Amino acid sequence: MSNTSSAGADDIEGSISLGPTRRPSGVWHIGSRDLPAPQDVSDELRASIVATPQPDLSSEPAVPADEQALRALVAEADAMATERLHALRDRVGATVTPDVIDGVGVFHVTPATIDPRHEDHLFVYVHGGAFVLNAGKAGAIEALVIAHRCGIRAISVDYRMAPDHPLPTPADDVTAVYRHIVSERPAATTALGGSSGGGNLSTIAVQRAVEEGTDVPGALYLGTPGNEMSEEGDTLYINRGIDRSIPRHEDFVNAVRFHADGRELNDPLVSPIYGSFEGFPPTFLVTGTRDLLLSATARTQTKIRQAGGIADLLVLEGIGHGDYGNPLNSPESRFTYSQLNKFLLHHLA
Amino acid sequence: MSNTSSAGADDIEGSISLGPTRRPSGVWHIGSRDLPAPQDVSDELRASIVATPQPDLSSEPAVPADEQALRALVAEADAMATERLHALRDRVGATVTPDVIDGVGVFHVTPATIDPRHEDHLFVYVHGGAFVLNAGKAGAIEALVIAHRCGIRAISVDYRMAPDHPLPTPADDVTAVYRHIVSERPAATTALGGSSGGGNLSTIAVQRAVEEGTDVPGALYLGTPGNEMSEEGDTLYINRGIDRSIPRHEDFVNAVRFHADGRELNDPLVSPIYGSFEGFPPTFLVTGTRDLLLSATARTQTKIRQAGGIADLLVLEGIGHGDYGNPLNSPESRFTYSQLNKFLLHHLA
Repeated sequence: MSNTSSAGADDIEGSISLGPTRRPSGVWHIGSRDLPAPQDVSDELRASIVATPQPDLSSEPAVPADEQALRALVAEADAMATERLHALRDRVGATVTPDVIDGVGVFHVTPATIDPRHEDHLFVYVHGGAFVLNAGKAGAIEALVIAHRCGIRAISVDYRMAPDHPLPTPADDVTAVYRHIVSERPAATTALGGSSGGGNLSTIAVQRAVEEGTDVPGALYLGTPGNEMSEEGDTLYINRGIDRSIPRHEDFVNAVRFHADGRELNDPLVSPIYGSFEGFPPTFLVTGTRDLLLSATARTQTKIRQAGGIADLLVLEGIGHGDYGNPLNSPESRFTYSQLNKFLLHHLA
Repeated sequence: MSNTSSAGADDIEGSISLGPTRRPSGVWHIGSRDLPAPQDVSDELRASIVATPQPDLSSEPAVPADEQALRALVAEADAMATERLHALRDRVGATVTPDVIDGVGVFHVTPATIDPRHEDHLFVYVHGGAFVLNAGKAGAIEALVIAHRCGIRAISVDYRMAPDHPLPTPADDVTAVYRHIVSERPAATTALGGSSGGGNLSTIAVQRAVEEGTDVPGALYLGTPGNEMSEEGDTLYINRGIDRSIPRHEDFVNAVRFHADGRELNDPLVSPIYGSFEGFPPTFLVTGTRDLLLSATARTQTKIRQAGGIADLLVLEGIGHGDYGNPLNSPESRFTYSQLNKFLLHHLA
């Protein structure tokens, strides 16, 4: 919070409650503890948590450092995600149509029913997947969820990724599509955003728009954004082994290294939390008590607000990284997207 | 989240990312880990965290179960807090004047300068202290901070407390004062709230106002509210030994038992998270990544929003229970109260 400006002259010292301190230490060793499944969550989420094996911290990292092994993992995961996309699309009667905008692949995602209030709105969606996963239609799953649940048209950006296309290509692709779209329609009626790595790239796209003088979107969605990729942030340590989606930094850092292409992980091009948050549009953020990236999300909220912006943060009990999509039929998942929709309806012109 | 209403017909199933699961378990055993002091916080907060001894979980509970020992602890702590109040009052040139409203002791807290935008506003403040601490002027410290930093007049309620006056007396006293005040001035220009136990009693006061048909305040402030006093909630387990203000449930539960007077700790009169959140006014909540009551705070946000209300949650990196007051001269502390003030200015009539 080094850039915090004071709220004006303020000569308050001391503390509300803490007394004198004794033995200084920078690093605390936190002992083991038992963590019960949360009670004050839906039956669906609780059942899902109880049915999830506890993360095994002695296992190999989820994403391997070896390029061939990474490619094999990505191919398998993307094929499964594409199947989920097809099943979901058919279930909700949406269409997912490929196109190319300014040389970048995209998918038009059109729900069965457009809410009349969203008739003139468009959601530009940026998928997650640690900058290596979810190429092609695999990347359109959350775009489909948003389109269906909010009744809004979406365009999912199929940006190029590592290992073949490390940074800045992914952000370049997102920016190219966004810039093209807002050259043809009002930015104020256009939303931008995504989860995890998609939150990272959406944040960078807005930072670039502000820098270049391109209009920022009418609303920004950052679902547990991967805005910090280095080993910094309280919950990276606190929620280690507790987040069932990404239990450890090691589980995604190999993917990020392919993307970073030799840059330090705290470079603003890798971790946009170290970039500027001036001029950000109204932003909706969501995270949960078990999220490894709760700190990355909360720090993003703070930085947007420090710069004078609107940053609405929803924190859900029992929710790990992206768990508002796991399972999709949980009340928590419906609640998250209904809150996102409320935010879009309020802020989009 | 059992009362969540669906956002309408929604036939989405499956999950965005999680694959099949293997070994079911309700309780996870979380291993030990190292927690560094956070980097992305102000120098002042970081220095304060580094200078704080790590909580010792082998120590006796902070609040004893023995009544005489409790009374001795309270007497000493309140005397120290009263000294802090006096020093702070003199430093900022405010006045703290005792009065009685409807039979209940209060303090009028008047800052040196009233912001003209708050000329017609009043903040009814409810102090924390686990329902046993901060009687008398000792309870007016945060009221003074709010009055000074926001430039708003405040009335701090000196409600009676356990062991002599267990529930429902504290909530009765707060309700009596609030009811009297809004019989004489518009509720829409009146804010209500406090931190910790004060958040608990403020929540109950609003629940009663809604039930009785009394106008709710124009804005509600719930700083890391003690809305859950039983052993439920993720962060009660996750942040055990990590929150430097209240490291463990054991550290406050003895005080709560004096207050609860034999009731179960999940009774809505003890833990208002189990009460109704219908009809709540716009509410500003604050917590942090190290807060033992992060879950209690986040669950309160969710319940207010599920009921259709406005609940603005600020989550600060590195902040434990009430740490936005520790130290008071940190940028995080100034930021918290400037955000509260922005909220008050927006929502008070």
